[in-house]
Amino acid sequence: MKKTNVAIVGMGTVGTGVARLILDHGDRTSRHAGRTIWLKKAVVRDLAKPREVDLPDGVVTDSLGDVIHDPEISVVAQLIGGLEPARTIMLQLMESGKDIVTANKALLAEHGPELFTRARELGRSIAFEAAVAGGIPIIANISQCLSANQLQSLEGILNGTSNFIVTQMDERGASYDDVVKQAQELGYAEADPTMDVDGTDAAQKLAILAHLAFGATVDWSDIPKIGIDNLDPADLQYARELGYRIKLLAVANLADDGLELSVAPTLVRIGTPLAEVRDAFNAIRVVGDAVGPVFYHGLGAGQMPTASAVVADVIDTAVGRTKLTFQTLEYFNIEQPPRVKLLDALTLMGRYYFRLHVANHPGTLAAIAAVLEKHAISIASVIQHENTVGAAKADSVPLVIMTHEASEGSAQGATVAIEALAAVTGPVVRLRVKD
Amino acid sequence: MKKTNVAIVGMGTVGTGVARLILDHGDRTSRHAGRTIWLKKAVVRDLAKPREVDLPDGVVTDSLGDVIHDPEISVVAQLIGGLEPARTIMLQLMESGKDIVTANKALLAEHGPELFTRARELGRSIAFEAAVAGGIPIIANISQCLSANQLQSLEGILNGTSNFIVTQMDERGASYDDVVKQAQELGYAEADPTMDVDGTDAAQKLAILAHLAFGATVDWSDIPKIGIDNLDPADLQYARELGYRIKLLAVANLADDGLELSVAPTLVRIGTPLAEVRDAFNAIRVVGDAVGPVFYHGLGAGQMPTASAVVADVIDTAVGRTKLTFQTLEYFNIEQPPRVKLLDALTLMGRYYFRLHVANHPGTLAAIAAVLEKHAISIASVIQHENTVGAAKADSVPLVIMTHEASEGSAQGATVAIEALAAVTGPVVRLRVKD
Repeated sequence: MKKTNVAIVGMGTVGTGVARLILDHGDRTSRHAGRTIWLKKAVVRDLAKPREVDLPDGVVTDSLGDVIHDPEISVVAQLIGGLEPARTIMLQLMESGKDIVTANKALLAEHGPELFTRARELGRSIAFEAAVAGGIPIIANISQCLSANQLQSLEGILNGTSNFIVTQMDERGASYDDVVKQAQELGYAEADPTMDVDGTDAAQKLAILAHLAFGATVDWSDIPKIGIDNLDPADLQYARELGYRIKLLAVANLADDGLELSVAPTLVRIGTPLAEVRDAFNAIRVVGDAVGPVFYHGLGAGQMPTASAVVADVIDTAVGRTKLTFQTLEYFNIEQPPRVKLLDALTLMGRYYFRLHVANHPGTLAAIAAVLEKHAISIASVIQHENTVGAAKADSVPLVIMTHEASEGSAQGATVAIEALAAVTGPVVRLRVKD
Repeated sequence: MKKTNVAIVGMGTVGTGVARLILDHGDRTSRHAGRTIWLKKAVVRDLAKPREVDLPDGVVTDSLGDVIHDPEISVVAQLIGGLEPARTIMLQLMESGKDIVTANKALLAEHGPELFTRARELGRSIAFEAAVAGGIPIIANISQCLSANQLQSLEGILNGTSNFIVTQMDERGASYDDVVKQAQELGYAEADPTMDVDGTDAAQKLAILAHLAFGATVDWSDIPKIGIDNLDPADLQYARELGYRIKLLAVANLADDGLELSVAPTLVRIGTPLAEVRDAFNAIRVVGDAVGPVFYHGLGAGQMPTASAVVADVIDTAVGRTKLTFQTLEYFNIEQPPRVKLLDALTLMGRYYFRLHVANHPGTLAAIAAVLEKHAISIASVIQHENTVGAAKADSVPLVIMTHEASEGSAQGATVAIEALAAVTGPVVRLRVKD
């Protein structure tokens, strides 16, 4: 049987999972690859550190040179995070003739054009299924399985940490801070969870998917994003009362004149598939013009789901499929003009949820309704509960308004104008509503 | 730009959709294939029949020879149903050097080993994404995307006609016969819907998936199957009362000693993804030992969803990926021993739902409970409503029993014994329950 020699660079959580699959399940990988997948080297930073996986003699090394200078190694799973030295190492590996498998979405979101252009110049390939949505094979599905379609929209729950936090707040009524602490204890959130909860991670993944699905060339930092770090349990309660759950939704929507991209906490109707995605799961719903809606649901992170995606890419690369796809699709080719332009966020249409605190006296609702009308926003429904805390009439009460379709610009303008009303206390909470 | 010449054999509903995608969206297919996908011939039975798609001059022919003897045509989408002449035509096309794309699941379920063996001998490939679950790319997902996994189970709603019928019966309380008539009017059911509603179609698809996912070599007719053609609205109501919906579920479950396969109407807990699959949609839930659960949902039939799968296969074949996969995986190779054996259906464990009519007098429930106990089946819950129709006490009342885990053999034995009791009228309805 033929043999493909593989190296792993970076033996963290995912690297360890990849080593396990290759070492413990050679029958499976060889059957699916038509050849032996042989782990020849595993590059680590600290040789003395104890490992969770038993590596055969001679496999572990702390020298990248042991991979670069070994012409027998043709595929490298490069599993180190961050931008540098990850970028430099990837360039070195490709220059020494290796095909790359990576899970590093931040690296692709920042340096995709440079790395992919260099790979094409060198006749190498980069596979990156594990970079988006972990165990859900969304890259292959968009790039190959749905290739007969023009995708029309893509909606995803792409950050498992955020979804875990929102689910726990919603189901247990816990506060944001308490749930973040729990998520950290369970290993679902980093010590510093900022990139997950502020929407950065979802925006980086959306930028990659928008490129694959729509040919958009977009810097992830240009995608309008709101995280879940300011979400109030009260909004989860009101949403439920209105028949919705709140999810951190990454959206790409193809309109006649361009592509809408956004990451924001969004009210999603209970009973629809995206609303039922719980805890650390990810999900993606795409609509193609031929296939219609297709929905994917699975674990978006974790050692073995991510390793599953990496090893599938290693097999695809060993078989030769990755190279064909890579050469054909020319992802991140800066010489190709983008196929769509990004729409100005202010012109995007959608429904909105407003929550505000208003003075409990006559005329308040009329004043707010007048502001909305002035901004061409019509009201779909209102919730204002009677104050039941004590017998005394409260000075201010919460008011929730759901609107019909309005532009983001109108909604922003109305928000500022409502906050300026004397009868309104504190900031207005404004969330998107998915129909 | 390079060009791949393609032919369609069979211009029915799906063939027309494939022609549309290739003719109207050349930009898309050429971008995804890295070459022009050119429709050179479309073989029809009756040249005089009006077409829903405008074919360029010289494309339509009623002679298969125009394809067989044209060495420029390398890929053929063979889209005719049934076993013959489909089988003979496929062999002829492969012998004349064509790679095949097909949607004919019955042909693969019956003649897969012969056709795939001949394809390998001739150095040709057969792509068949459209044969199972229409627009859901489950074949590519199992064969490639999840290749790092040993799949542990697969549960699918694979027949859209049955699911449409059951959904309408459940949601509208309509009778089986009325809904079948409606399904026929809407084009969801054939004039003779037998193969859909008796479980044959789902069993054929399950046989194909079980081969891909578990290496099982199974004749579809050996899979125990029950259709929805005898489903009573009363069972849908009782199921809902118990927190379940009834779905025609195709199940493959890998146990220590072999593979369990079955197709049967099954109680699925409300709120789980499979229970929420409505109307003509299909869905598949697989569990892999690395990736965990992955859930797919989409349109399982229809012109454009099926054409989406066919054209993706045409592109994969033109690019060269199909050949690599086909040569590597050696599907339907009769010289390879099966990797799992089928378990005896009688030994399979599961929970059961029984509905029976019992005499309305003391001791009846005790007699039934005694029979169940004798067959080592323990009762989980019972529903017996007070008879409210009129003031008079009814002679017989319906009784519903949910059991804990029991073997299929015990459940069958208990059914026969209960039906023999004097206090029980008519046949016992017995359904599987998914936990």
